[in-house]
Amino acid sequence: MNNLSGKASLNNAEVYRNLSFESYIEGILSGNRSILARAITLIESTLEKHQQKAQELLSQLLPYSGNSIRIGITGSPGVGKSTFIENFGLFLCEKGHKVAVLTIDPTSILSKGSILGDKTRMEKLAQHQNAFIRPSPSGGMQGGVSKKTRETILLCESAGFDIIIVETVGVGQSEVLVRSMVDFFLLMIHPGAGDQIQAFKKGIVELADAILVNKADGENIELAKITFREYQQALNYISPATDGWNTEILLASAIRKIGIEETWATIERFKEITIATGVFQLRRREQVLDWMYSMIKERIIDSFLNNPKVKALLPEIESQLFQSKITPTQAVNKIFSVLKYENFGCNE
Amino acid sequence: MNNLSGKASLNNAEVYRNLSFESYIEGILSGNRSILARAITLIESTLEKHQQKAQELLSQLLPYSGNSIRIGITGSPGVGKSTFIENFGLFLCEKGHKVAVLTIDPTSILSKGSILGDKTRMEKLAQHQNAFIRPSPSGGMQGGVSKKTRETILLCESAGFDIIIVETVGVGQSEVLVRSMVDFFLLMIHPGAGDQIQAFKKGIVELADAILVNKADGENIELAKITFREYQQALNYISPATDGWNTEILLASAIRKIGIEETWATIERFKEITIATGVFQLRRREQVLDWMYSMIKERIIDSFLNNPKVKALLPEIESQLFQSKITPTQAVNKIFSVLKYENFGCNE
Repeated sequence: MNNLSGKASLNNAEVYRNLSFESYIEGILSGNRSILARAITLIESTLEKHQQKAQELLSQLLPYSGNSIRIGITGSPGVGKSTFIENFGLFLCEKGHKVAVLTIDPTSILSKGSILGDKTRMEKLAQHQNAFIRPSPSGGMQGGVSKKTRETILLCESAGFDIIIVETVGVGQSEVLVRSMVDFFLLMIHPGAGDQIQAFKKGIVELADAILVNKADGENIELAKITFREYQQALNYISPATDGWNTEILLASAIRKIGIEETWATIERFKEITIATGVFQLRRREQVLDWMYSMIKERIIDSFLNNPKVKALLPEIESQLFQSKITPTQAVNKIFSVLKYENFGCNE
Repeated sequence: MNNLSGKASLNNAEVYRNLSFESYIEGILSGNRSILARAITLIESTLEKHQQKAQELLSQLLPYSGNSIRIGITGSPGVGKSTFIENFGLFLCEKGHKVAVLTIDPTSILSKGSILGDKTRMEKLAQHQNAFIRPSPSGGMQGGVSKKTRETILLCESAGFDIIIVETVGVGQSEVLVRSMVDFFLLMIHPGAGDQIQAFKKGIVELADAILVNKADGENIELAKITFREYQQALNYISPATDGWNTEILLASAIRKIGIEETWATIERFKEITIATGVFQLRRREQVLDWMYSMIKERIIDSFLNNPKVKALLPEIESQLFQSKITPTQAVNKIFSVLKYENFGCNE
């Protein structure tokens, strides 16, 4: 009965077949991966009745969540993320950990095939009894991604997964989102200077607690060592992502299983230090507050900008602004003046 | 009749003495610095009737604004900003330019004395007939600063000032604000590595179009040259602030008037290149849109978070959140559910 999770996520008819509230709770708390997968699908549903059930479910499970280390992993396409996550995950599963891998896959907006693709690329890990892999479609918007992924983390934790890996593709903005929902953030890079400068330019290095120079094998070894030293130098110019923790640089070869153990040792040391200083707990509190306030802001601003009166007015206002006919303050006053007795976000 | 501007800004009773709308318009368009100063004070006033008059005034003057290069200058206290701005400003005034210097002074919240302080520290420039110096109190909030400073820039431009210098103290967040209202941003640094790393850590280097290593004189010359080279190296790790322009590094000694001409040549070249590519015009359009949208967001979110019902509810909601009694989504729903028929920002 391995890998039911995958089947469940692929078959919507089956997923929405009635499952009682108690069956969800019991199933998840007992670590049933099939029911966990169905609960995630419920959370991802945009139907109002599913959303209500999902929130109720989540609030019942909240007391059982949180007992994990949440690890974000990013890197450019082709850097070897899936190979690394597979071997890293297998290593942890063999040590007795329960590992959940959540992938945020922007390509899934374009091609539904990527779900099968993800399954294929972590085949061994997907079949391990201690692992759970969930490729989530991003839903086409960043707020959507972050909301569902955060809630999926909580569900996985209440199902007993003590290591949560959130994978993302190196496309810039998604890293900021993932950083806001994990404890530890790992950046994977290629040996060689080009990739290094790219990562710096995108501002991703500032988010990382560790940088893994992957593919440090064969003829790449010397280049990987040069990259390692360049990063050591470059890290002098940026502030660490986590108070009291100096960003670490690691050499690895995911395909040859080199650097796997060292990465885990780094993460364990990170957790130990940041829990001792309270930085770990403080970040989680701040993350949950940020999550709430970002949802509030998103809802009220969306509601404002999607208001039919505002939408009708904006093109003309912007045009007057560009022609220096009105000041920005007058523009703002004009927009608000047509909006008496509107009720942003509060009727929904 | 020099330096009336200073007197006007110090004497509120005089400022609010009735001046007709036409006198403001005529006075400003003819470059009368005393009336310009009074108009700025009008814009800075928080009284509703002053605000309305100020906005009306500004919209009349808008067609005459924009013909300038807007230069932001930042750097740590003691780096020599005022000496540089004085000598740079005098150089430009002697070339026939009209130079307005706007200082954003966070210390003025604490001490009114800083207004006199600013006057003293740029004494020669303040007395030049082509110069206008306006130290603006920050008003204790960042939104306030940016709003008034942006509008002050427009006023100065319509009074014929073709070079606008916006000075700020290196305190981090204020640089982002100033960057959002200028064409060209100059970072001044001390010779020596400590300052270098600080500037990088604060993320200010990424905002700069040029970096000026000041105090490159006497026994500091060698150190300044080392700093120059270190920055050349370090700039490889960040992306330029302006498309199509590579961040320049300059050596200067403000006190000995070294590097003044080179700085101006750099700015002229910057303007020429970015106007040719359209980046200059595009940035100004984006800045005016950002200005409007940031005011909209600020107003609606402030109005929401200051709503008495929301304020009463938030502490309990946050506490339930921290105790894992409710999910963030439920928290958001709870807050919005008490807010039927509220009208954020629209009655004001």
